[in-house]
Amino acid sequence: MTMTHQQDLKSVFIAKDLDFKPAAKITKKDLNGSVTKAEYAVRGSIPTRADELKEELKKNPGLLPFDDIINANIGNPQQLDQKPLTFTRQVLSILEYPEILQVDHEKLASLNLFSKDALKRAECLLKDIGGSVGAYSHSQGVPGIRQTVADFITARDGGEPATPEDIYLTTGASSAATSLLSLLCKDTRTGLLIPIPQYPLYTASASLFNAQVLPYYLDEECNWSTESDEIEKVVQDALEKGIRPSVLIVINPGNPTGAVLTEETIARICLIAAKYGIAVISDEVYQENVFNDFKFHSMKKVLRKLQHCYPGKFDNVQLASLHSISKGFMGECGQRGGYMEIVGFSQDIRDALFKLMSISICSVVTGQAIVDLMVNPPQPGDESYEQDRQERSKIFNEMRTRANLLYETFNGLEGIECQNPQGAMYLFPRLILPDKAFRESERLGVEPDEFYCASLLESTGICTVPGSGFGQKPGTYHVRTTFLAPGTQWIQNWKNFHQSFFNEYRD
Amino acid sequence: MTMTHQQDLKSVFIAKDLDFKPAAKITKKDLNGSVTKAEYAVRGSIPTRADELKEELKKNPGLLPFDDIINANIGNPQQLDQKPLTFTRQVLSILEYPEILQVDHEKLASLNLFSKDALKRAECLLKDIGGSVGAYSHSQGVPGIRQTVADFITARDGGEPATPEDIYLTTGASSAATSLLSLLCKDTRTGLLIPIPQYPLYTASASLFNAQVLPYYLDEECNWSTESDEIEKVVQDALEKGIRPSVLIVINPGNPTGAVLTEETIARICLIAAKYGIAVISDEVYQENVFNDFKFHSMKKVLRKLQHCYPGKFDNVQLASLHSISKGFMGECGQRGGYMEIVGFSQDIRDALFKLMSISICSVVTGQAIVDLMVNPPQPGDESYEQDRQERSKIFNEMRTRANLLYETFNGLEGIECQNPQGAMYLFPRLILPDKAFRESERLGVEPDEFYCASLLESTGICTVPGSGFGQKPGTYHVRTTFLAPGTQWIQNWKNFHQSFFNEYRD
Repeated sequence: MTMTHQQDLKSVFIAKDLDFKPAAKITKKDLNGSVTKAEYAVRGSIPTRADELKEELKKNPGLLPFDDIINANIGNPQQLDQKPLTFTRQVLSILEYPEILQVDHEKLASLNLFSKDALKRAECLLKDIGGSVGAYSHSQGVPGIRQTVADFITARDGGEPATPEDIYLTTGASSAATSLLSLLCKDTRTGLLIPIPQYPLYTASASLFNAQVLPYYLDEECNWSTESDEIEKVVQDALEKGIRPSVLIVINPGNPTGAVLTEETIARICLIAAKYGIAVISDEVYQENVFNDFKFHSMKKVLRKLQHCYPGKFDNVQLASLHSISKGFMGECGQRGGYMEIVGFSQDIRDALFKLMSISICSVVTGQAIVDLMVNPPQPGDESYEQDRQERSKIFNEMRTRANLLYETFNGLEGIECQNPQGAMYLFPRLILPDKAFRESERLGVEPDEFYCASLLESTGICTVPGSGFGQKPGTYHVRTTFLAPGTQWIQNWKNFHQSFFNEYRD
Repeated sequence: MTMTHQQDLKSVFIAKDLDFKPAAKITKKDLNGSVTKAEYAVRGSIPTRADELKEELKKNPGLLPFDDIINANIGNPQQLDQKPLTFTRQVLSILEYPEILQVDHEKLASLNLFSKDALKRAECLLKDIGGSVGAYSHSQGVPGIRQTVADFITARDGGEPATPEDIYLTTGASSAATSLLSLLCKDTRTGLLIPIPQYPLYTASASLFNAQVLPYYLDEECNWSTESDEIEKVVQDALEKGIRPSVLIVINPGNPTGAVLTEETIARICLIAAKYGIAVISDEVYQENVFNDFKFHSMKKVLRKLQHCYPGKFDNVQLASLHSISKGFMGECGQRGGYMEIVGFSQDIRDALFKLMSISICSVVTGQAIVDLMVNPPQPGDESYEQDRQERSKIFNEMRTRANLLYETFNGLEGIECQNPQGAMYLFPRLILPDKAFRESERLGVEPDEFYCASLLESTGICTVPGSGFGQKPGTYHVRTTFLAPGTQWIQNWKNFHQSFFNEYRD
């Protein structure tokens, strides 16, 4: 084959053409520093090591002290055996292959594969979509699906109207957040108010778009509450330093804390937004994941209430609310869908956002369809209703039960303190490690929480993320774990590990 | 309801809290200028006007001189009645709803819905994917699918080996290109060599990432050929001005020109890359769309040949090759999938790219599955093979026939000159407009090509994009049209419009 190669292209160049010294390759220092300095711990060093261990387990099963990796590092429910909702998948299956709708109905019914309401919904969605999920949609998303989302928001928020013009269907909440942030981050004097601890997408975006992170600390002692006084202090400090606090990120329910905001807290956040003209991004992707008598209140609903209650005071508030199909009952992470509702922004900003969205043309159309199914599930009287309700109960109860079990396990151990689970898919317990563990981590050149997580992984196969990946008050150490992994054996394994770890490092 | 609102939140604030003047909203001048100045004509002013007309047609059918909008502005085959390949959609349907695999095989077979090979392939893919398309995959994409892509590339490139480690599965080619460019655009002294005319994603990315566009002009007289002398001249000019030419964009087959590069041209491009250390992004999304005896050669294959042929001279070449499920026989635009193959980059750059990809977690998993189906279609002997082959032939022949008809129509008219169709989905004829048309466009304050496209739209409903959206030599004017719209009536309508336009504006 080499001979052929040489003959093919030998005549292209003359000797003079080839009389050059090949130039140096691109090196790290030639790259965009904003990108290279961005960090994203959820898929950082511990999860990377877990992937290596997974490969080792495949090659040499039996050589490690565990049989499997438990990916508790990322909210990825279907990786951990959460079953997709049947109704959702029936509709999607038909959307991908509409020939199913052409089959004789009685014959199809004999297979017991597709419910009547799934067939009907798929037919409606196909019409909305324009006939094929394989065609690009409107850059803001399929109009009919945006209408369904608007109807959902209106009902959820006690009748406060939402409109399809304000809805953007996106490739998950991350892409919505980064699009908006890329627009709002003008320069290095733009400040992003980010809760600490936070989901690391936000600090990564600040890095990517050259903005300043303005951290506001959540109050761990008060169940990770958000204190508006703390936020306002950060705003004033920033202004004094010549930083414009442009965007306030709120995560409700919190990631990694699980904290659910009260209406009063949300109202106080809106007050800061109104007073200082700060745009709010309210990341509400865990709105269905709320446990133990806590209740989710949307930022939009509270904002509208305030606008009614205090005329003229809150009309300037600019709010983007995010939701996703990846969490809640759907757990359809890999299908990449979500929506953003934009209210209060001027037409200029809306036009710029639309143009930006149009560069990536549109989000995945099946993901858009799942948004429709998420916000408009089967209703009482529909053939699928009872099964759907049962599937949802099961998901909810299992998650709540495991959250509470994990919480109790942590609080029954020495050197680990956990706040009461309220929502989301995570616990974020605090590690109070003995001096000897500190010294050992220092010797290894890693942070103490990273040392703990690495040891946990190597001993049990449980993959978590150290608190440093989310931010934490200096001198405090945490670990974030999902409570998605099935069964309870892994919780027992963690308990045993923790006890051994303390036995080894207790002062 | 207003009363309830007031009661709910009235107690939150004391009078002093509300003693503030609401701050001003964000305005356009507060936004990131790099984002606001980015332009993307494919969904620009003419397509936006087309959307308005579509709404008007719905409200007042009969009031306009046409019954429908022909979206010839964007390569969106399934919007224009291109049928998805049956095998692809059968597999996807099962991936979304694996319960189909549990049904009694004979009963299922009686419905004639799913072929045996579709069932088998879905089963294999599900295993590769880890059981559910609803779980996040590896950030680089499902390993098994990356292996299939590597095997495809190896076979396509005459045995030159590709490996799954070099493959990234992405949300279409656009997202691959923008991720890599965001990394490689260090600062305002970074230069991107972009062919003119070009697909506007590239100039938009240069704007988003603050890089300099270094335009190199394609030679319209020579069927839009790429001249390496022209590229080298641009490189040298840039270096003299203190701009680092870091990335060279090649689109092969060309968009909007359709030009297919010869092996010799590709070799000459590689020489420039080697000589100056410029990374190459080879956008090869139209590699299946090649007509009229032209032949596609991948940049990777030619690079490998050169490396064999001239040891040591081409080893420094850094190449990213893009492919997509949106074009070719699949036409699955709305499903958002593609891949990027990276060769020659240093490990530092690869690590940085992987970290960047991990921030958006993973591309849509069904889109990844379609990549697998694109590169590994049914083979002779498989149950689906014959139907699949026929469907592909039909798509190919219809596109080629329409391309040639449109080409002949244009060249039979006065004031319009079109190059011979070679590939992609577009023709990019040149408009040679009479002075009176220039004066009229000047009076209206628009470019002459925009004036032509707007007139075409208002008269016939045919939506195209003016050449200015892709770039063109100063003083020349073009229009880009896809040849995807079904039937030939719209071509006749265009012909009639063009004749009337010239009758009105002929000097």
